Amino acid sequence: MESSESLILMNCVLPLLHLAIFPEDAHLRSCSPKMAESPSDTHSISSLPWYIAGSQIVGLTVVVITGVWMGHYRGGYEWTNPALEFNIHPLCMVIGMVYLYGDAILVYRVFRNEKKRTTKILHGVIHVIALVISIVAVFDSHSKSGITHMYSLHSWCGMMTFIIFCVQWVMGLTFFLFPGAAFSLRSWYIPLHIFFGLGLFALSIGTCLLGVTEKVMFSISSEYSKLSSEGVLANVLGLLLVIFGVTVGYVTTREEWKRPPNPEEQALSMDFKTFTEGEDLGSP
Amino acid sequence: MESSESLILMNCVLPLLHLAIFPEDAHLRSCSPKMAESPSDTHSISSLPWYIAGSQIVGLTVVVITGVWMGHYRGGYEWTNPALEFNIHPLCMVIGMVYLYGDAILVYRVFRNEKKRTTKILHGVIHVIALVISIVAVFDSHSKSGITHMYSLHSWCGMMTFIIFCVQWVMGLTFFLFPGAAFSLRSWYIPLHIFFGLGLFALSIGTCLLGVTEKVMFSISSEYSKLSSEGVLANVLGLLLVIFGVTVGYVTTREEWKRPPNPEEQALSMDFKTFTEGEDLGSP
Repeated sequence: MESSESLILMNCVLPLLHLAIFPEDAHLRSCSPKMAESPSDTHSISSLPWYIAGSQIVGLTVVVITGVWMGHYRGGYEWTNPALEFNIHPLCMVIGMVYLYGDAILVYRVFRNEKKRTTKILHGVIHVIALVISIVAVFDSHSKSGITHMYSLHSWCGMMTFIIFCVQWVMGLTFFLFPGAAFSLRSWYIPLHIFFGLGLFALSIGTCLLGVTEKVMFSISSEYSKLSSEGVLANVLGLLLVIFGVTVGYVTTREEWKRPPNPEEQALSMDFKTFTEGEDLGSP
Repeated sequence: MESSESLILMNCVLPLLHLAIFPEDAHLRSCSPKMAESPSDTHSISSLPWYIAGSQIVGLTVVVITGVWMGHYRGGYEWTNPALEFNIHPLCMVIGMVYLYGDAILVYRVFRNEKKRTTKILHGVIHVIALVISIVAVFDSHSKSGITHMYSLHSWCGMMTFIIFCVQWVMGLTFFLFPGAAFSLRSWYIPLHIFFGLGLFALSIGTCLLGVTEKVMFSISSEYSKLSSEGVLANVLGLLLVIFGVTVGYVTTREEWKRPPNPEEQALSMDFKTFTEGEDLGSP
């Protein structure tokens, strides 16, 4: 095959074949002049609400299944009965450290064009609500039941998540909201904040999976291996927790869905770059 | 404060303060003309080997601790005794789906300047070795012991990891090695391959944590809450698994450490862009 032929194959035929298989990728540049003239990410952005909606459906299903598991199979919720008080813990954790944590991350994709400061405040506030809800009813019920604290891998992972979560929240507040750090400091910290935020979200979900396994083994140890309905419900809950995590992670890390930098940030970035690279700042 | 003063504060004083606190970040542009003239990522890259070394130390420690746990506390390894045959499973999983899986990802950071095709082959080959090692000795020992298959969340997560791992491997081979897809298809698939590769690595580690919890609850259920040495060892193993995952994830996603595109890829990308944007390809 001559090189011009192989170039046509590589640049024209195969991309068209790709578009035939994946029509939703029409926003990718192809050899069609019409498409080449409209290279915007409109198509890609238009699918974002579907992913957000999907994440919310999975997230709410996770909350409902946990509620049903504890409410129906484990005897319900009661503050004065230590055994039933404990049932509040899984539900609060799933609402706080999974569903709300995920939504606190997603605000940057849902409110893509709103004022960044407002979005940041929302991000921080949802995280605080998540934390407050999630620390309800665990140590108290353990003490009343005479169960040792902090012996299991689940509790160790939970404590690690809790500590790093608090550090991350204070760092976020200091760097990005109040008093707000210099541009260079913020640029240095932002990738770390994102990496550890998503890592912590994964750890939080992992800790929930450990909790599901512990709970099911304590409650129905002998029935579990017979694929009883409670065991299957717990396993389905575990898989849905993973699917929720994957969806939030995907929406957050997909390059085309990232929040466009606002004009103020762009101007600051340009000023900073121009100034530090020794170019003339004062020219008209 | 006048705007020029605030600009000096923002662009000059605060970055210098930052460098005083974090001297290793001297590669970040600051207002020092000397530093501005050498904006390379040399400093950043020079710390990469330390992170790689750290990941290897943690990874090998994880393998050794698993070996000691199964070998010393759980009675050792024996193919002909179903109870002891099972002990091979955690060790093989940690070697295969954690340590080798992590290293298969890291090859793109360790061999940053080697030929990309060679690195790809190494990536694929280590993944196959990881898979083969990890599927040793689980179904066989379950059958011999009369234990039901696939009832626990651990097994469901493990099966999900196994299936997606195989799909991901075949997709990787088809798109990037043999026969190799068109440039546009590869550009479409590469972020998905990276996202699902890292997500699967996290799921693999999460599945191991579930396995640790199951094993410890089956083996030393009453002793676990008394913080026995075996229970603490299992918890430490769990935390080190998380630390290994975080280290590999950090090294892989840090922007400055990404593999620079090789000249061939850059040329292809330029050709593709030029061609599809309707500019003249044949100009001298």
